[in-house]
Amino acid sequence: MNAALTSVISAAEFQLLRLVSLGLVLEDGQLRILDQRLLPDNEVWIHVENPQHMEILIKRLSVRGAPLIGVAAALSLACYAQTEPGLEKLRQAARLLREARPTAVNLMWAIDRIQRAAPELAGGLVAGQIAAKIASCAVDIFHEDVRMCEGMGDAGAALVNSGDGIMTICNTGGLATVGIGTAFAAIRRAHEQGKNIHVYACETRPLLQGGRLTTWELAKCGIPHTLITDSMAATVMRSGKIQRVFTGADRVSVRGDFANKIGTYNLAVAAKHHQIPFYPVAPWSTVDLSCANAAAIPIEERAGSEVLGVEGAFGSVRWAPAATKVFNPSFDVTPAELMTGVVLDRGYFPIAEFQAKKW
Amino acid sequence: MNAALTSVISAAEFQLLRLVSLGLVLEDGQLRILDQRLLPDNEVWIHVENPQHMEILIKRLSVRGAPLIGVAAALSLACYAQTEPGLEKLRQAARLLREARPTAVNLMWAIDRIQRAAPELAGGLVAGQIAAKIASCAVDIFHEDVRMCEGMGDAGAALVNSGDGIMTICNTGGLATVGIGTAFAAIRRAHEQGKNIHVYACETRPLLQGGRLTTWELAKCGIPHTLITDSMAATVMRSGKIQRVFTGADRVSVRGDFANKIGTYNLAVAAKHHQIPFYPVAPWSTVDLSCANAAAIPIEERAGSEVLGVEGAFGSVRWAPAATKVFNPSFDVTPAELMTGVVLDRGYFPIAEFQAKKW
Repeated sequence: MNAALTSVISAAEFQLLRLVSLGLVLEDGQLRILDQRLLPDNEVWIHVENPQHMEILIKRLSVRGAPLIGVAAALSLACYAQTEPGLEKLRQAARLLREARPTAVNLMWAIDRIQRAAPELAGGLVAGQIAAKIASCAVDIFHEDVRMCEGMGDAGAALVNSGDGIMTICNTGGLATVGIGTAFAAIRRAHEQGKNIHVYACETRPLLQGGRLTTWELAKCGIPHTLITDSMAATVMRSGKIQRVFTGADRVSVRGDFANKIGTYNLAVAAKHHQIPFYPVAPWSTVDLSCANAAAIPIEERAGSEVLGVEGAFGSVRWAPAATKVFNPSFDVTPAELMTGVVLDRGYFPIAEFQAKKW
Repeated sequence: MNAALTSVISAAEFQLLRLVSLGLVLEDGQLRILDQRLLPDNEVWIHVENPQHMEILIKRLSVRGAPLIGVAAALSLACYAQTEPGLEKLRQAARLLREARPTAVNLMWAIDRIQRAAPELAGGLVAGQIAAKIASCAVDIFHEDVRMCEGMGDAGAALVNSGDGIMTICNTGGLATVGIGTAFAAIRRAHEQGKNIHVYACETRPLLQGGRLTTWELAKCGIPHTLITDSMAATVMRSGKIQRVFTGADRVSVRGDFANKIGTYNLAVAAKHHQIPFYPVAPWSTVDLSCANAAAIPIEERAGSEVLGVEGAFGSVRWAPAATKVFNPSFDVTPAELMTGVVLDRGYFPIAEFQAKKW
């Protein structure tokens, strides 16, 4: 189904297209991205010159968030195709982008999908209206991401009552997607519906996506919020201030076990202890039907330096002895037993229903 | 009992005294302290000139750890008394030290005890051998702290098996006391007994005492260890690497509920979920017989800037938007239901036994 384009976009139409998200703008045939490294203190937009430039922006984390990376890479290829660089250079550019961040499944998925929409890229067919096909596919990917975010927002917000305190972790909003986000979409949609909510954002050590980006997005949206360290989550839950927890999900198994940013499992354990509903929120594409359960999800480790201190555009400090041995898993796995249900773009599924479903 | 001095120390004897701990040295009648602000990268010793100087060192956190502060203040008063400054100046110095950190119960307790040992200071009696009395009392406080640490270490280490992985939070060792510590004493003593242990130290946001100081002490003692962020605790427990958790305790109620560094409750909840034994470790003086239960322990909040970023001799950075609202409780309360037992200097008490005891 992915190869069927909703329309084919001519060069003139591409110039007139305007696609806007919190972290990305396509306008006058040009792509710009918000440099997320410089947030929250500086909002600097970068004109993406070509796919080589896009690769650098992905590698240095100016663009982050798996769905956003996929869309940004697809659109940068579409812009490049408009310049008619020739088939070989386009193929090279597609390869370059596809490998820019090996762990970002959405990135490979987006480029592969473009290659199916424009099979000339994969080398199988003669050149055709390739720029138009790439543009159409990239624009489809953009709009699909927006629609999936809306779906997650609607399904998640339906679970929220006015007066709820909501806890979340990492950044899952308009900076991570080109729509209103995943877990963040549920929060934002509930707020837009006029529900009186208060968000407790966990800072999300070691990379601080909660402290740096989620706070910034919450402020942008005018949603009342409080920042806490990850170690305070259980204490805030105990105080009665939290009615539900929404988190993103990087990969969901068939039984509902899911991988997400390190610290998610800690939150799930604390939520269970305090009998607080806990929901992962993810697009359907995140459900991996080939993954049976938590045991099938490997845990990847990142550089120890991230735990010895902090590093970013805000500065760089190290407080621990330099030789200290560190354990730095980039994500953890939360078993289905700890969750209330799964919020997908196609609706909300209580965990028993999710597990019983024949997808 | 506190006013009964074990001996009276003459000026000549005071000059010959040598008291050494990880963070404090008395030698040749002079007091030196290790500037804990500069750890772990720099070990700088400061000669304490007089009680006014000691007050500055306490206020700016060069000296920290409630037991250590009490002993350091007492010894600085003892050194000052040797210079025969006159009764009024001695009284002023005692008042100054007593107020240097309002939340440090041990500090007030130490100075009050000196005033009972040398009642001239409180203004009740005529001047006598006041310098000798102050010196004797301060030295008693030092040795008692060392003995209490040994008691906690022995009682805690008896719970440890060779091969155990042990998790801890904050700094509770030789930098916080003048002995081998509280929770850290159990770990250190088990290591000294030849038990093969591995320590997982939680970094302890926001002030990072675990990342900065406990790692340094563990390395000094040659104890194998790994540093993690607080958000990783539950994941490490789930992996089967942790057999018990030892934490300090700032204040223990009669039923065993206790206040300690923020993050302790989070660890206790995770330990309960994973059926891992959890023990607070504290000197008997920390048990507050006037405190019935957790509800009687108020939670104090600190400056929001501590959560917006980090600050120390290692540097200062802020990553969250400056206007972000923050919740920053300096400690949390762990209810007795989550703990296995209490380790005191007078022995180990399973929680039911602790609660049943008529102290």
